[in-house]
Amino acid sequence: MMKTVTEIAGLVQGQVVGDGSRTVHDVAPLDHADSGHVVYIDAPHRIKGWVNSRATALLVQGHLVDQLPDDGRPRIIVTHPQEAFVRLMLHFRPPRARANVGISPHAFISPSARIGEGTNIHPGVCIGDNVEIAAGCDIHPFAVIGVDCTIGAGCVLHPHVVLYPDTVLGRGVILHAGAVIGADGFGYRFDGQQFRRLPHTGRAVIGDEVEIGALATVDRAMVGETVVGDGTKIDNLVMIAHNCRVGRHNVFASQVGLAGSVQTGDYTRFAGQVGVADHVKIGNRCSLGAKAGLHDDVPDGQSYHGYPAGPELEQIKVHLAARRLPEMRTQFKEMQARLAELELQLAALLAIANAESHDGVVPAPNATAARQAA
Amino acid sequence: MMKTVTEIAGLVQGQVVGDGSRTVHDVAPLDHADSGHVVYIDAPHRIKGWVNSRATALLVQGHLVDQLPDDGRPRIIVTHPQEAFVRLMLHFRPPRARANVGISPHAFISPSARIGEGTNIHPGVCIGDNVEIAAGCDIHPFAVIGVDCTIGAGCVLHPHVVLYPDTVLGRGVILHAGAVIGADGFGYRFDGQQFRRLPHTGRAVIGDEVEIGALATVDRAMVGETVVGDGTKIDNLVMIAHNCRVGRHNVFASQVGLAGSVQTGDYTRFAGQVGVADHVKIGNRCSLGAKAGLHDDVPDGQSYHGYPAGPELEQIKVHLAARRLPEMRTQFKEMQARLAELELQLAALLAIANAESHDGVVPAPNATAARQAA
Amino acid sequence: MMKTVTEIAGLVQGQVVGDGSRTVHDVAPLDHADSGHVVYIDAPHRIKGWVNSRATALLVQGHLVDQLPDDGRPRIIVTHPQEAFVRLMLHFRPPRARANVGISPHAFISPSARIGEGTNIHPGVCIGDNVEIAAGCDIHPFAVIGVDCTIGAGCVLHPHVVLYPDTVLGRGVILHAGAVIGADGFGYRFDGQQFRRLPHTGRAVIGDEVEIGALATVDRAMVGETVVGDGTKIDNLVMIAHNCRVGRHNVFASQVGLAGSVQTGDYTRFAGQVGVADHVKIGNRCSLGAKAGLHDDVPDGQSYHGYPAGPELEQIKVHLAARRLPEMRTQFKEMQARLAELELQLAALLAIANAESHDGVVPAPNATAARQAA
Repeated sequence: MMKTVTEIAGLVQGQVVGDGSRTVHDVAPLDHADSGHVVYIDAPHRIKGWVNSRATALLVQGHLVDQLPDDGRPRIIVTHPQEAFVRLMLHFRPPRARANVGISPHAFISPSARIGEGTNIHPGVCIGDNVEIAAGCDIHPFAVIGVDCTIGAGCVLHPHVVLYPDTVLGRGVILHAGAVIGADGFGYRFDGQQFRRLPHTGRAVIGDEVEIGALATVDRAMVGETVVGDGTKIDNLVMIAHNCRVGRHNVFASQVGLAGSVQTGDYTRFAGQVGVADHVKIGNRCSLGAKAGLHDDVPDGQSYHGYPAGPELEQIKVHLAARRLPEMRTQFKEMQARLAELELQLAALLAIANAESHDGVVPAPNATAARQAA
Repeated sequence: MMKTVTEIAGLVQGQVVGDGSRTVHDVAPLDHADSGHVVYIDAPHRIKGWVNSRATALLVQGHLVDQLPDDGRPRIIVTHPQEAFVRLMLHFRPPRARANVGISPHAFISPSARIGEGTNIHPGVCIGDNVEIAAGCDIHPFAVIGVDCTIGAGCVLHPHVVLYPDTVLGRGVILHAGAVIGADGFGYRFDGQQFRRLPHTGRAVIGDEVEIGALATVDRAMVGETVVGDGTKIDNLVMIAHNCRVGRHNVFASQVGLAGSVQTGDYTRFAGQVGVADHVKIGNRCSLGAKAGLHDDVPDGQSYHGYPAGPELEQIKVHLAARRLPEMRTQFKEMQARLAELELQLAALLAIANAESHDGVVPAPNATAARQAA
Repeated sequence: MMKTVTEIAGLVQGQVVGDGSRTVHDVAPLDHADSGHVVYIDAPHRIKGWVNSRATALLVQGHLVDQLPDDGRPRIIVTHPQEAFVRLMLHFRPPRARANVGISPHAFISPSARIGEGTNIHPGVCIGDNVEIAAGCDIHPFAVIGVDCTIGAGCVLHPHVVLYPDTVLGRGVILHAGAVIGADGFGYRFDGQQFRRLPHTGRAVIGDEVEIGALATVDRAMVGETVVGDGTKIDNLVMIAHNCRVGRHNVFASQVGLAGSVQTGDYTRFAGQVGVADHVKIGNRCSLGAKAGLHDDVPDGQSYHGYPAGPELEQIKVHLAARRLPEMRTQFKEMQARLAELELQLAALLAIANAESHDGVVPAPNATAARQAA
């Protein structure tokens, strides 16, 4: 699908600078673009990438366009380059139409389950007793939905998703392949000989518009609920343990782990591989750095880093000081030697001074030594 | 199901203090309890939680009951509050009866497989040649059991569990959704150009009463066995590599990783996200702190923390000292300045002293400086 | 299957030292060998293991054989003990013949899919529209292959593998149970209120002879491709995010996580639980230590360790210095005390000296104090 630059500028309400008659046929990331591609930049440090790229046209903000060398390639001025890029991406690569498979005869569906209009149930899906699935959902092959689960409208369960019994999904939830929601929490009582399972009669409740990545797990509560708040996005291989209460619009990068009963506020972000100890409370709009290990509560709005985690600035100072530790140790030993030498010399001087003054009023260089000498 | 406090006290052999005629209908966690709920506390620092809670009744030990303000709410004195709580939880929320589905006609079962009495085989289960499954097991949808596997009595395989060929499960093993047991170990030989697979002809052997979390993996041995000892409990997303030999009654929190050939004793506990390098030996009754990274053996009974991990007390001291490093660096630079100044002053004093004594017996303040001056 | 030592030496072109008439029936790892087993050693520090083992025979290099005590057990001198061991392992434990199941009538296969000769499609496999699968593949139960995927010759997809639409696998790729390739990347645009999904119209491309472990994930690109280069080996539970470009013959141990758009060269190795921040570039033949956390680029050939990661030698020095920090703090405080005492004494001496010289030429002990006094 060939388009002129002027045509695509029209699609994104952009203003062409340069030759609008050039043609493009796709979008591409800046690093891997070729002739015929449209790319975008949204920061000055990306300009070099554009200059080195073979892309045909650029989406760019007005305030950056003057900083570009004029190499004859057309530029399209837009307010939000990434948004415009996404619009063109969907233009050149329209999403596949949603398959309309209806309810597969090869699914295993309890007679007591209720399934809403327009919901697709693919082959091999298992749906237990009393399950309710609202309208417009896509339940992909081999998803297993336990008894008494409830699924809101417009949810997508990718292949092999497992919902243990009693799980609740809000509207518009997306669960990627292999995600497991509502498994028994990891709770045992040690009887002196062995670990006895604590029954888990609570459930997992996933809010509206939540997205959970492939092979992530959210365990059910022992009693009560494990909650993931509306709008929260969770990446692959994340672990949310029993009785956690995650706020709304949180973001969890891959491989984060929350131990039991952790609470988070709204708009809090976890970078990759963060770990949080049980019962820790994290506030609103916090930011946890990659690999941070949290044992203590984090107040609203704080950025915590490191292991054990602390406030970002403090951690940076500690880290910088730690990197200079070997050098400091060397200087430290040298200082010890110089100090010892000074003490010797001062002792010698004092001996002379005392000998001259004949009254010993000057204290000895080392109080202990002086006391011992007395 | 409404019960009076006196009635539920009877269920747990407890003694009512206060008004036993109040009614309750469920248990709840302390933080989220409401009117009509029973809660429990088992430590003085939970008292505040009870005071602030709207729960109707409390399970509590005798020695704590006197520390509670009398707000008119009934308390039930019991020896083990958590145990009593679990009993009431199961009373108010009786576990679902085990489904009796028999052997699904939609399962794929080799004619040479043997399946014990009372074992449920759900739809979509695949069972390979020569598999033996003992009595009373639940094999949930889409579990795949490779050839020559052996499964003891009373095991539960949740949906999508995969047992590679030759895997052995003891009695009463619970494998949560998506767990993969017996996959080929990660072993290669580098031939100078590429990595060549080392065949893995060993197997994975899981002991009695082991529980393994959702999406956890235990790889088979190259030769011999990867072993998980009786009674060990493993949380979600844990990795146990080839040829590990995990002892009995170990506990692995989520996202722990053991590299190849790690050995552990009995009753050893791993907090979340711990990593252990290959061939490390960890003793009995050890405790490994969250995110610890182990490269060296750990003797019996030790608590190790940190990365690289060391004994807990040592690590705490190092950590506390590290947090004060930036301040120490400031003081250090100030000390360097003071020391330099002392050296200058002493040199001046020595010059005077030597001039007065005319014989230069006092050594110069800095041997190097003296040599340069000479 | 009993063999004499002389017979098995013939199988590996080895030379027997000692009694070649002894019989063996299996290989075993050194630590768990018993009578009748062949073991191998390939380094001097393994000699003790051989001495303590009850194995019947040993594969060993010529240069090590003289260091062994002669306890009467036969040794077989070979050039590559591990290779010889693997050959004997496959002799005593021949791999199962590849099952020839053809195309299961219980698979769900789009009429537009094309499947090569000799490819096995097990029950429950789902294959979408326009999928192409080359010859000689094994597609195990419940693998789900989305529309427009392409799979090269000789690939093995273990149970429950999921390929999202558009995924490309080269020749000889092995995907272990539950691996998920091509899921949507974790990319959102925050609109001030909530996180909006960025559509992911790119794909994931897996090179020839790649092996990916159980429950590992490789996400698709937003635009363009997420690439895993030829010959790269990836262990269980690893995360490769959208738009990463992994080079050839890399090795990823378990639980490593790469954030978006990371690039790696060839022959680079990641130890367990390493995390790499987005857009980081890692060179050829690098080595990243266990649990390393990378925020900056790594030049060719470097070994990086620690968190935040740095060059190995630097990190070792920092670590050793950090372990001595508590001791250094103690010495530091003692030095502060000694320095303060020296200052006092010197002040006293100076007072005397100045009094004697009557002209105050000697500077005061603290320059600032002196200037203030002036």
